[in-house]
Amino acid sequence: MSLLIIGSIALDTVQNRFGKVKDALGGSAVYASLAASYFCKNVSIVGVVGTDFPKENIKLLKSKGIDTSGLEIADGKTFRWKGKYENLNEAITLKTSLNVFANFSPKIPDNFSLCEYLFLGNIDPELQISVLSQMKRPKIIAADTMNFWIEGKNKSLKKLLKMIDILFINEEEIRMLTGESYIFDAAEKVLQMGLKLIIIKQGEYGSIAIAKNNLFFAPIFPVQKVIDPTGAGDCFAGGFMGYIASQNNINYETLKRATIYGTITSSFNIEGFSVEIIKNINRVQIDNRYNILKKYTQFS
Amino acid sequence: MSLLIIGSIALDTVQNRFGKVKDALGGSAVYASLAASYFCKNVSIVGVVGTDFPKENIKLLKSKGIDTSGLEIADGKTFRWKGKYENLNEAITLKTSLNVFANFSPKIPDNFSLCEYLFLGNIDPELQISVLSQMKRPKIIAADTMNFWIEGKNKSLKKLLKMIDILFINEEEIRMLTGESYIFDAAEKVLQMGLKLIIIKQGEYGSIAIAKNNLFFAPIFPVQKVIDPTGAGDCFAGGFMGYIASQNNINYETLKRATIYGTITSSFNIEGFSVEIIKNINRVQIDNRYNILKKYTQFS
Repeated sequence: MSLLIIGSIALDTVQNRFGKVKDALGGSAVYASLAASYFCKNVSIVGVVGTDFPKENIKLLKSKGIDTSGLEIADGKTFRWKGKYENLNEAITLKTSLNVFANFSPKIPDNFSLCEYLFLGNIDPELQISVLSQMKRPKIIAADTMNFWIEGKNKSLKKLLKMIDILFINEEEIRMLTGESYIFDAAEKVLQMGLKLIIIKQGEYGSIAIAKNNLFFAPIFPVQKVIDPTGAGDCFAGGFMGYIASQNNINYETLKRATIYGTITSSFNIEGFSVEIIKNINRVQIDNRYNILKKYTQFS
Repeated sequence: MSLLIIGSIALDTVQNRFGKVKDALGGSAVYASLAASYFCKNVSIVGVVGTDFPKENIKLLKSKGIDTSGLEIADGKTFRWKGKYENLNEAITLKTSLNVFANFSPKIPDNFSLCEYLFLGNIDPELQISVLSQMKRPKIIAADTMNFWIEGKNKSLKKLLKMIDILFINEEEIRMLTGESYIFDAAEKVLQMGLKLIIIKQGEYGSIAIAKNNLFFAPIFPVQKVIDPTGAGDCFAGGFMGYIASQNNINYETLKRATIYGTITSSFNIEGFSVEIIKNINRVQIDNRYNILKKYTQFS
């Protein structure tokens, strides 16, 4: 099955107590597609970069089997994000230079419009909707969002929520979106908008996958040392979507496994800056962690 | 097997947005023994109350099969705690009146000194140590503690930690105790003091049981509505200890199950003020939630 990922492609400058990287490969579409590539052999991305975007980054994506023909190279500079972490739970944005991303209007190539699985990374909900209008109805549509859109584009976001199946959202965001402080009440309210599944990301506490009559708690994978959480949520979503795209039936058991695979790909990513770890793992390492997490959660 | 519980017995005045109770039954020994009583038929408590302590409270404990012969009735007033919650994650102490608890010096009746399982509720670590000196070596010794003792009686607490098997502690406390911010590093440091198991309580995020070569993540049980978290940690410890005391072999599978049973008893308790829920549940209800939580965490 094919998976299409739309999102940002960025050059990140990140600094924390473990070190610093400058203009390192990042962005939601990059992290998500790399994570997905370990499960699904048919991953494509749509996004925009500037003429300054290093060729080796594209080469890297291609080397993971990711179809980059939907990558638009626009005149100007690539989107840049500069941030730091004082503790590892919260990114502090120092500078955002949208550059060519400011005028990003995703154009879905014809051959991508038939993709069965679609992940709309965290971009303006109006753009997410415009992507949907270019797709023949995919089997599963998932989206990520953030505070910025919940506040600034609330109406468009609520319209989008009626059109998708799966939402990735963090605790603070779902509280803001619904006005409910108890996350199970908040999830209930979002499910009523018509979604099939909500994945509430709880950072260092794991995640909860909530469906109408089902619930699944996933812990984190306890890594030796968290180096840089940038991209953790995107790797989670990418691993999740890559796994379900690789499966033919989407029952709740598949969704549970996908949640764990999302957890695992995310756990690798936070062990290094930028994509340095997530670009270099393999399925054996992933399945090792999967089995460890099973041991850490199963009881009789 | 027999379980002895030492801790506070209190009359609590608690207020939050759902209501208020005045001089309601509380205290770590009360919550823990009630929770334990659903698993273990041989639970005893040691504690002190004043002459004002309502007889019906003692009657209640006895009605659950709890041996109250170690309950000292001292001249004066019962320990009182007055608190409020603005959000349900953090208790704000308005007033603590130690009363007879100020001079509490636990005296373990001869027939209790042979108890195989011991839970030292959250009291001065010097008193916890004095209890140990009165016991013939129990099979399993568990203790709870808090910030107040980590700061004020650090040396005694560290001495205690060398003498016990299981520690119940929350995230903030284990960070304070060890100076490590990453909880897995913090747990490692505490395990090196000689403990067999550390249960890190994470409030609304569940708990983690960490042993030398083992780890178990327990989520919360998602209740309809959290009314009052007072006593949640004590019910957790009581359910945990009651379950292991009811079993004859303490392998890691037993400890996992105990962690889930602790989670479940605690989940009932927070659905009402004081002991109003925890005093009135039964094993069928507990096992129902146990099986639901299994469904919510197991994957293949």
